[in-house]
Amino acid sequence: MSRPKRVGIVASDCYFPSTYVSQASLEKHDGVSAGKYEVGLGQNKMSFTGAGEDINSMCLSAITGLMEKYNLNHTDIGRIEIGTETILDKSKSTKTTLMGDFIAAGNSDILGVTNINACYGGTAALFNTIDWVESTSWDGRYGIVLMGDIAVYEKGPARPTGGAGVVALLVGPEAPLVFENKLRASHFEDAYDFYKPNLASEYPAVDGHLSNACYLRSVDKCYQLYADKFERLEGKKFDMVNGAQRYLFHQPYAKLVQKSFGRVMYNDVTRGVLENEEISKFRNVEPEASYTDRALDKACVGASSDLYKSIVYPYTMASRNIGNSYAGSLYFGLLSLIADETAEKLGDRVLMFSYGSGLAASMFSLIIDGSLKNQREVCNLKERLDNERVEISAEKFTQALAEREEFYNAKSFAVNSPPKFMSPGASYLSGVDALGRRSYQRVPAVRTLAAATARQMHTLVRRFKI
Amino acid sequence: MSRPKRVGIVASDCYFPSTYVSQASLEKHDGVSAGKYEVGLGQNKMSFTGAGEDINSMCLSAITGLMEKYNLNHTDIGRIEIGTETILDKSKSTKTTLMGDFIAAGNSDILGVTNINACYGGTAALFNTIDWVESTSWDGRYGIVLMGDIAVYEKGPARPTGGAGVVALLVGPEAPLVFENKLRASHFEDAYDFYKPNLASEYPAVDGHLSNACYLRSVDKCYQLYADKFERLEGKKFDMVNGAQRYLFHQPYAKLVQKSFGRVMYNDVTRGVLENEEISKFRNVEPEASYTDRALDKACVGASSDLYKSIVYPYTMASRNIGNSYAGSLYFGLLSLIADETAEKLGDRVLMFSYGSGLAASMFSLIIDGSLKNQREVCNLKERLDNERVEISAEKFTQALAEREEFYNAKSFAVNSPPKFMSPGASYLSGVDALGRRSYQRVPAVRTLAAATARQMHTLVRRFKI
Repeated sequence: MSRPKRVGIVASDCYFPSTYVSQASLEKHDGVSAGKYEVGLGQNKMSFTGAGEDINSMCLSAITGLMEKYNLNHTDIGRIEIGTETILDKSKSTKTTLMGDFIAAGNSDILGVTNINACYGGTAALFNTIDWVESTSWDGRYGIVLMGDIAVYEKGPARPTGGAGVVALLVGPEAPLVFENKLRASHFEDAYDFYKPNLASEYPAVDGHLSNACYLRSVDKCYQLYADKFERLEGKKFDMVNGAQRYLFHQPYAKLVQKSFGRVMYNDVTRGVLENEEISKFRNVEPEASYTDRALDKACVGASSDLYKSIVYPYTMASRNIGNSYAGSLYFGLLSLIADETAEKLGDRVLMFSYGSGLAASMFSLIIDGSLKNQREVCNLKERLDNERVEISAEKFTQALAEREEFYNAKSFAVNSPPKFMSPGASYLSGVDALGRRSYQRVPAVRTLAAATARQMHTLVRRFKI
Repeated sequence: MSRPKRVGIVASDCYFPSTYVSQASLEKHDGVSAGKYEVGLGQNKMSFTGAGEDINSMCLSAITGLMEKYNLNHTDIGRIEIGTETILDKSKSTKTTLMGDFIAAGNSDILGVTNINACYGGTAALFNTIDWVESTSWDGRYGIVLMGDIAVYEKGPARPTGGAGVVALLVGPEAPLVFENKLRASHFEDAYDFYKPNLASEYPAVDGHLSNACYLRSVDKCYQLYADKFERLEGKKFDMVNGAQRYLFHQPYAKLVQKSFGRVMYNDVTRGVLENEEISKFRNVEPEASYTDRALDKACVGASSDLYKSIVYPYTMASRNIGNSYAGSLYFGLLSLIADETAEKLGDRVLMFSYGSGLAASMFSLIIDGSLKNQREVCNLKERLDNERVEISAEKFTQALAEREEFYNAKSFAVNSPPKFMSPGASYLSGVDALGRRSYQRVPAVRTLAAATARQMHTLVRRFKI
């Protein structure tokens, strides 16, 4: 029994709340200078939701969307694995709350639980699911990976770096997006840059400066290791220009992605595979000092600017408009790439950098090995972000977060109607009883896909013979 | 590149606190009838610890024990994955706190995070690590799986079902304990039998009767599915007597293991592969009613009693003496089997049942395919349980749990000396600063293994060429 081939992402979709606040209106509301969030952070809009949605309901919305849009059969799924740090219960995993439709279809034999390490959990879940398909444990069924969070901060400078969303990926063989598993390069260490030790609060503890330094150090470590592994495996040097054609980064805010890409160029210069006079001046800066060296940062961002605009920036699209969905962030980058038909070049290598505070980081890659048209049309990301959401004022956004505070960990309440503006077919938290047991309901779905399209997509789905 | 063969458990060890309370003394302290815990639950001793140990320190103690006793090189480890529901931080994983020694050795390229679903997280972590070794992602290094918890309950009837411990398993190819991955049979559903919605408390919410019914229903579902898969794969019927030679169950308390084994017999009778007149009388009981049918339970326990004593009960040993270590419990069963040299029969199939409330369950099996003598001697389980622990009074046990309550989620404190009676080489929580950042220290280690033994064990450890 040989391993299945071309294991990767067979189908994809996502869910994000239908309400957002614009960063420009937040700037005014917060009384900061114009452009502090839009230009300073590089962010445009931020998804948010009140107490009527939690991570379970958002994962329900995401998996239901994926199953229905692709007309998937509930018996064709053998694994559902989740990466999140939006923890509602220290013991019961979100995955268990998704079992209803599967059990109704007679399928409770579905592996997978929750993976936790800050924004890295989705990558852990994805790696596990890929490895499962390649192992003798695989039984020919698809795996679903859900990655996402509700990112909220207490009032203050970090609040505009929130967001909310869940990405749903269908993993199996013969995929148009194929992972290069031999090249996974990771860096883990013990850090307190962003963490959640206050269990009774939804808000994290953050050391922003430390977190940026940890992120950039992880880019260094992972990129150097990735290049080493590439060179051992392929027998030739890796450099950022010729080695990969697209770059996706975990995106707390877009400006950090730009710094990180500049950092990759800094690495290539210090590794001696790329020449750049401006950056070369900084090659003897001590690593730890280099993370906060503004002149170095400016030189790297400047030198990499054109390349950034063409092979990185376009894929920051979804997260610029959703905000930081933590575990989902990197994969909203992937959906942004799928959404961009000009990015669909067969054979292109997409380099991905996943970072979770605490810390856990991996750099890895996939190859575009088939048409992404179907995934682009099904997810319909740009249209949904631009035209299927409602802008809410900064005042009402602030009220919504106050509502979340009030109901976080609360018991004995019911939500009598779906949250306003909720997307058709999405699920919401309908109540928490006196014992803390949660229940969910669904907004009536509207069939947005023609039956013919659904049938066409169904040809994607088959049991693999193994 | 073909898959590595005989992937399984290459080495094993564990950590449990050096202090325990006897169930007999708890009976007196609680003013219940003699035997209520010892006979009623089937439990003898319960490990516990005060505020000086947390899940991070216990995992540090476990992984350090495994690394040192087997003289493992820190660069030979490519994955460290953890299953626990003892959550100290909703974002930062326990695994990150274990990186110190590995980074000192120049190895930060180590995959794996925390898996969460009640007592099932360890099984998820183990499955992921096995699959990783069999996938193209594997790079020839070992994986370490840590599974365990600190199980504490508020004052009341559930308190004697606590416990504490962490199992450490080294996973790789050419192992003496080899998993049969094709036979994994799982059952997941949405239940609130045991859960932890009170984030600010270390204690769970428990519906004991529901949890027992969920557990037994999961035994049914998983066993039937396991038998189906076996029959499809092997082309012959599976029955409990001829199909497997040893049985390990997740063990909240030993009596539930006995009921569960009886339930397996009930399944064989209703499936028509085993004849038993007494049990047959109950074959038409409705499934849901059957979980609480005392006469049925009595008939099954009675009919399976001899078999239980010989192929199940011996492996409840560690958990009878440690208590419920949640994610560790099933694997303390495996260590009990390894500790019993009479159980070491080449070719024997060991059937394992993992259950985590919420709920997640899997039945799976391994084959004894090599000598376990080395693992038995290194772990030295019986000796450690019998002679390297200190009995503490029920009063002081109650004080220790009060201390845990006081310091759970607390900040700005230091532990100035190791907890009393702590094992040499174990780690403890030395403080939590004002920002909730934790620090750990180690009790000086005593080399208990002769250098010669260490050298001999080192032959276990090599890089696999792939």
